[in-house]
Amino acid sequence: MKTRDEALALDAADPLAPLRDQFAIPEGLIYLDGNSLGVMPKATPARVQQVVTQEWGVGLIGSWNSAGWMGLAPRIGDKIARLIGAGPGECVAADSTSVNLYKVLNAALSIARADAPQRTRIVSERSNFPTDLYIAEATAAERGFELVLADSPEGLPALLNERCAVLMLTHVNYANGRIHDMTALTQAAHAAGALTIWDLAHSAGALPLDLSGSGADFAIGCGYKYLNGGPGAPAFVWVAQRHAERFWQPLAGWMGHAAPFEFTPGYRPAPGIRRYLCGTPPVLGLAALECGVDTVLAAESLGGMAALRTKSLALTRAFTALVEERCAGHGLTLVSPRDDTQRGSQVCFAHATHGYPMVQALIARGVVGDFRAPDILRFGFTPLYLRFVDVWDAVERMRQMLHNEEWREARFNQRAAVT
Amino acid sequence: MKTRDEALALDAADPLAPLRDQFAIPEGLIYLDGNSLGVMPKATPARVQQVVTQEWGVGLIGSWNSAGWMGLAPRIGDKIARLIGAGPGECVAADSTSVNLYKVLNAALSIARADAPQRTRIVSERSNFPTDLYIAEATAAERGFELVLADSPEGLPALLNERCAVLMLTHVNYANGRIHDMTALTQAAHAAGALTIWDLAHSAGALPLDLSGSGADFAIGCGYKYLNGGPGAPAFVWVAQRHAERFWQPLAGWMGHAAPFEFTPGYRPAPGIRRYLCGTPPVLGLAALECGVDTVLAAESLGGMAALRTKSLALTRAFTALVEERCAGHGLTLVSPRDDTQRGSQVCFAHATHGYPMVQALIARGVVGDFRAPDILRFGFTPLYLRFVDVWDAVERMRQMLHNEEWREARFNQRAAVT
Repeated sequence: MKTRDEALALDAADPLAPLRDQFAIPEGLIYLDGNSLGVMPKATPARVQQVVTQEWGVGLIGSWNSAGWMGLAPRIGDKIARLIGAGPGECVAADSTSVNLYKVLNAALSIARADAPQRTRIVSERSNFPTDLYIAEATAAERGFELVLADSPEGLPALLNERCAVLMLTHVNYANGRIHDMTALTQAAHAAGALTIWDLAHSAGALPLDLSGSGADFAIGCGYKYLNGGPGAPAFVWVAQRHAERFWQPLAGWMGHAAPFEFTPGYRPAPGIRRYLCGTPPVLGLAALECGVDTVLAAESLGGMAALRTKSLALTRAFTALVEERCAGHGLTLVSPRDDTQRGSQVCFAHATHGYPMVQALIARGVVGDFRAPDILRFGFTPLYLRFVDVWDAVERMRQMLHNEEWREARFNQRAAVT
Repeated sequence: MKTRDEALALDAADPLAPLRDQFAIPEGLIYLDGNSLGVMPKATPARVQQVVTQEWGVGLIGSWNSAGWMGLAPRIGDKIARLIGAGPGECVAADSTSVNLYKVLNAALSIARADAPQRTRIVSERSNFPTDLYIAEATAAERGFELVLADSPEGLPALLNERCAVLMLTHVNYANGRIHDMTALTQAAHAAGALTIWDLAHSAGALPLDLSGSGADFAIGCGYKYLNGGPGAPAFVWVAQRHAERFWQPLAGWMGHAAPFEFTPGYRPAPGIRRYLCGTPPVLGLAALECGVDTVLAAESLGGMAALRTKSLALTRAFTALVEERCAGHGLTLVSPRDDTQRGSQVCFAHATHGYPMVQALIARGVVGDFRAPDILRFGFTPLYLRFVDVWDAVERMRQMLHNEEWREARFNQRAAVT
């Protein structure tokens, strides 16, 4: 891709191009932050309004049945399952990613304690997303386990030994976009006698996943990134069927009870994945999440996640090449993997000193990426709604921004953005 | 209140009457189920639509700052604090009631274990709402405590002894509307050396509360009942300042971290109540919750919770008297307390055999209450939007329904409704 015309030609030939029309994207904006908060599907406002004004406003309490509110969490879970290589009845939408991680980590530790009490370690990596590490740190302290962190992915295999109870990883690293080999690491963990937990926050909806085929034990993921569920959307949780009924998870709320409306004392966990529900389902958030998930499922007739992945790689390859060529000499260093098989749906550059104001100056030019401490300019590429011409234009605006040193003038907005 | 005209006169004289106009109530419906799911405030659809189409749709990731999404949980918490006798900075809106109960119960047990390791019991009552008992049962099993249940409120004092670590109660019983004396029981628990957790699901927004004055230690509550936050709205959590920073709660997610956007490994809990946050805040649900809370705060200039309580008692007294007088001879027995000081904002009758179809037949006549197993017809009275004439008309419809034995024909809808 050497010219803007070539980019336009790639878009004209893109079989996934019609999917962009599902989204409301502000005019002129090039949004490379769908890995933080996906853009709004056009279907969402009307659906949310229907839930508020009709299902709640008119249907009131009766809507728990008549509008199917009770079935939202498993129904959306089943839809997400199609995107992550899982079967129906194996996944539910619920709570936040952090809360769901807590559930599966505790379930995994209960299994480990029962089967292999000498295993006392939760293994992860230092560059895992902080909330995952915080949850693991608190859980380890509470339950008498030890959280052991590899300094790099290469350090993980050595930690998969007779002391490891659970290997807990985020499949695609939030900061640099590097992909772990889920199948190989799961096999290595199992060979060492450990269980695996995969955080799919930066994977679900971004690349093909095969939880069942990889032999994974537990997985969780985020609803508001590549699934386009809206700010703070409910998350999801998946448990391999062989584990689903072995233990309670500790957040044993009534929606995970076998018969929540019998109002009986004494917890009887629901069969299967439903026991990973806890409190009353967040109906507004679930309705918006379903609209988002549907935008990804709309790709199924066009080749599905495999086709989205092909396009995503073409976008990130093109962006990387163009930045390295057209923005050379400004101190940007690629930190995401150059190898397609190791790179998620994002491209990250490090800049030693001015990463933060550079991101701000780009935002001022209508190219939204984000900055990740300490030095990373992060750009996410959602193949559902990004075009090759967006890649071209983003790099052109970056080139001008760098050439003019616009980052010297960039407003220092308060830092806050959600992974 | 002996005639419909008298009811109309009471409404005409009611200083709180204008508050009803804040709500969209379907024409002709008498909604006595606001203790399960509050009705929709008129302000909510536009506010939710603004969040979806403008803040998310246009502002995208920048709205975490520019639209104040990061501040929603503490801002709404501060508003709820005004309704429950707490101070600013002591309460946050987050997660579900069940999840919040898990947080405070674990924090309380950590304090108990540190201060009084010989105390091994969580004391509650058998008729507490099931999800509270399930959470306590799971937590007790996990942490080596014992859940001990009183068969009746009268049995509680005997359990407040040297073995009790935590007294965990729902302030107003979901099934019969009986109020616990929060101050007296808190004092008794403290005298015995135990901590208290109060579930305010059926209290917040329904009657005056004084968490600080009562000396309570922890409280949680529900956003979708008397706070009118919408189906599955986020819940709230309050911790007495003396306890807030003593321990982590186990759901140590990034939003409870002192500096969530530094992305540093190692959990450093935020000061005060903010450490009771966990994952990314559910923005849509929080926006709707704030609209609901505002409908209750709108009463502040009209006498606030005290005035709402006075009206609520007048409504429930009138309903009780009218049912007993005009529906006599049909086997209905009052099970909520006759004594104003012991009755929440609901009235419950038991019927030995036909409670469920009677509730269905009433719904068919546009009077929405709910049935609670095994035998309870439950009617909630939200003083914000119910009129005395609604009480009159509800009882008149009930009288006709019973006289015609319409319950014999009632459709048996699938049972499901959320507390």
